[in-house]
Amino acid sequence: MKKIINNPNEVLNDMLKGMCAAHPEYLKKLENANVVARVNTPVEGKVALVSGGGSGHEPAHGGYVGYGMLDAAVAGEVFTSPTPDQVYEAIKAVDSGKGTLLVIKNYSGDVMNFEMAKDMAEMEGLNVEAVIVNDDVAVENSTYTTGRRGIAGTVFVHKIAGSKAETGASLVEVKEVAEKVIANVRSMGMAISPCTVPAAGKPNFTLGEKEMEIGMGIHGEPGTHREELKTADEITDHLVSKILEDMPVKQGEEVAVMVNGLASTPYMELYIANKKVSEILAEKGIKVHKTFVGEYMTSLEMAGFSVSILKLDKELKTLLDAKADTPAFKVFG
Amino acid sequence: MKKIINNPNEVLNDMLKGMCAAHPEYLKKLENANVVARVNTPVEGKVALVSGGGSGHEPAHGGYVGYGMLDAAVAGEVFTSPTPDQVYEAIKAVDSGKGTLLVIKNYSGDVMNFEMAKDMAEMEGLNVEAVIVNDDVAVENSTYTTGRRGIAGTVFVHKIAGSKAETGASLVEVKEVAEKVIANVRSMGMAISPCTVPAAGKPNFTLGEKEMEIGMGIHGEPGTHREELKTADEITDHLVSKILEDMPVKQGEEVAVMVNGLASTPYMELYIANKKVSEILAEKGIKVHKTFVGEYMTSLEMAGFSVSILKLDKELKTLLDAKADTPAFKVFG
Repeated sequence: MKKIINNPNEVLNDMLKGMCAAHPEYLKKLENANVVARVNTPVEGKVALVSGGGSGHEPAHGGYVGYGMLDAAVAGEVFTSPTPDQVYEAIKAVDSGKGTLLVIKNYSGDVMNFEMAKDMAEMEGLNVEAVIVNDDVAVENSTYTTGRRGIAGTVFVHKIAGSKAETGASLVEVKEVAEKVIANVRSMGMAISPCTVPAAGKPNFTLGEKEMEIGMGIHGEPGTHREELKTADEITDHLVSKILEDMPVKQGEEVAVMVNGLASTPYMELYIANKKVSEILAEKGIKVHKTFVGEYMTSLEMAGFSVSILKLDKELKTLLDAKADTPAFKVFG
Repeated sequence: MKKIINNPNEVLNDMLKGMCAAHPEYLKKLENANVVARVNTPVEGKVALVSGGGSGHEPAHGGYVGYGMLDAAVAGEVFTSPTPDQVYEAIKAVDSGKGTLLVIKNYSGDVMNFEMAKDMAEMEGLNVEAVIVNDDVAVENSTYTTGRRGIAGTVFVHKIAGSKAETGASLVEVKEVAEKVIANVRSMGMAISPCTVPAAGKPNFTLGEKEMEIGMGIHGEPGTHREELKTADEITDHLVSKILEDMPVKQGEEVAVMVNGLASTPYMELYIANKKVSEILAEKGIKVHKTFVGEYMTSLEMAGFSVSILKLDKELKTLLDAKADTPAFKVFG
């Protein structure tokens, strides 16, 4: 597997340097920690949001640091949870005295390490809460997960809880709305080719020349099944059906949609998938308030995509539409 | 080559449907033409901008239709110029009476067909001008090109000429600033894997397991040479050196940088490349005003990236920083 890198052991350092060099108006790297934080952190009078996880999912999570989303993103090695001390450094850097919410994707390592950091911060007298995102309807329990995995729906949690925090809401209120997003977002993905962790040097799974995997995770964890590649319409129909089976959406209700490329899937194919998503929802009388098509939660160079559907009420809609200004996610508001 | 599509002959239709369904607040498809136009077109009192070309480069060009960039994007079949009548339909739809600027990437088919559309529109009494973008320093003349190819630097032309048009400038003034951008932007790319036109069904070139191609075009046109894959630093150094040889930038001058992913290259690797770009420019005392890292001008599922450098003066800087609100390019202004 060819990669445009310098040294497999330096990809995290090099990437963080390149990211901060690209976006100095938004980001600074904390000294002595693989944490990317807002340039103006801590933001006075605002609950802080910290997220992160293993690297390899860019623009998640550093790309979502900025106004209306995260205050800091902690970057572990590729597909590896950041250590508790790194998360702790992030909390210390961003806490303005109003408390910090940790947004954790549901992987056992992330949950353990973020929770330990929370304990460490609380022992220092900081006020920290945590929410766990588990939007992937594909499978219960997985290679690195007890329960459901957290995938692209996490970006909706960043956006909506982040905008709530900008209103000056309390830690309890920000946590509440984050949990409301989690309760109302579901995702599912598929892949047609694997990815390769730089230090491993070989693909994390293999697929036949005409084969696809349905419901795999963003680290290549097994999905629900493999089968021969079908049409975009058939694949999309399957993903959306599984999502709506799990979370019924009634005629007349409103949703936000995310069609998320895992990396190697061209925009052309993501738009083709969105054609079918929009047709299915229109047929059911479900109103699409806003659609996001792009690469939001990637998986190194994996080819494939996921669909996320977020059921909206008035509060979620208002917060989704509020201003966000980050390197990878901008809403005029 | 696996693709997430329905029918190789329907990718353009399906994509345009999916794109317009995703962004109804920005885009509408013209009836009877593969043209994506601003919902509120024609914009009274504003010079209109029309661009486009073969499909397969998404988000170019439909993703750049909106405030501060394009009024319409004409979409040909994959890697195939749109026909003159399609371009003509675009011009007719967006012209507010203040004239239209065509932004053409330098491919013989595009130039011929856009120029023919210009003639057709002029015969109807419309005022149309055209500029040709040729930012790729890699090679003179190519498979589909006389002179240099137009690649990712085109997005800077859209942005800056588009923002000029929003000020109420005349067609002559908008054309002038577009030409200033063209005179001051240079790009060069590299690839580690090819792409496959859906209707062709096989890759447009092949590369050995450790091989890369330097300077290839966004349709897989041959570059300057092939060699064994080097480090990200070495590759980036080569690309930036070729750009700066062609367009010297003095110490103290300011530039905008675009590190553009061709599709399959992860954000992680784009940021790693940007690390080196920023180091080289810092060493030379060249100030980076703004950096764009992402997928701006793709090449189906090709893996690789390009670097573009735009030399800025006060006017270009102001226009680059002005508000843009399109599906794929947002500046708060």
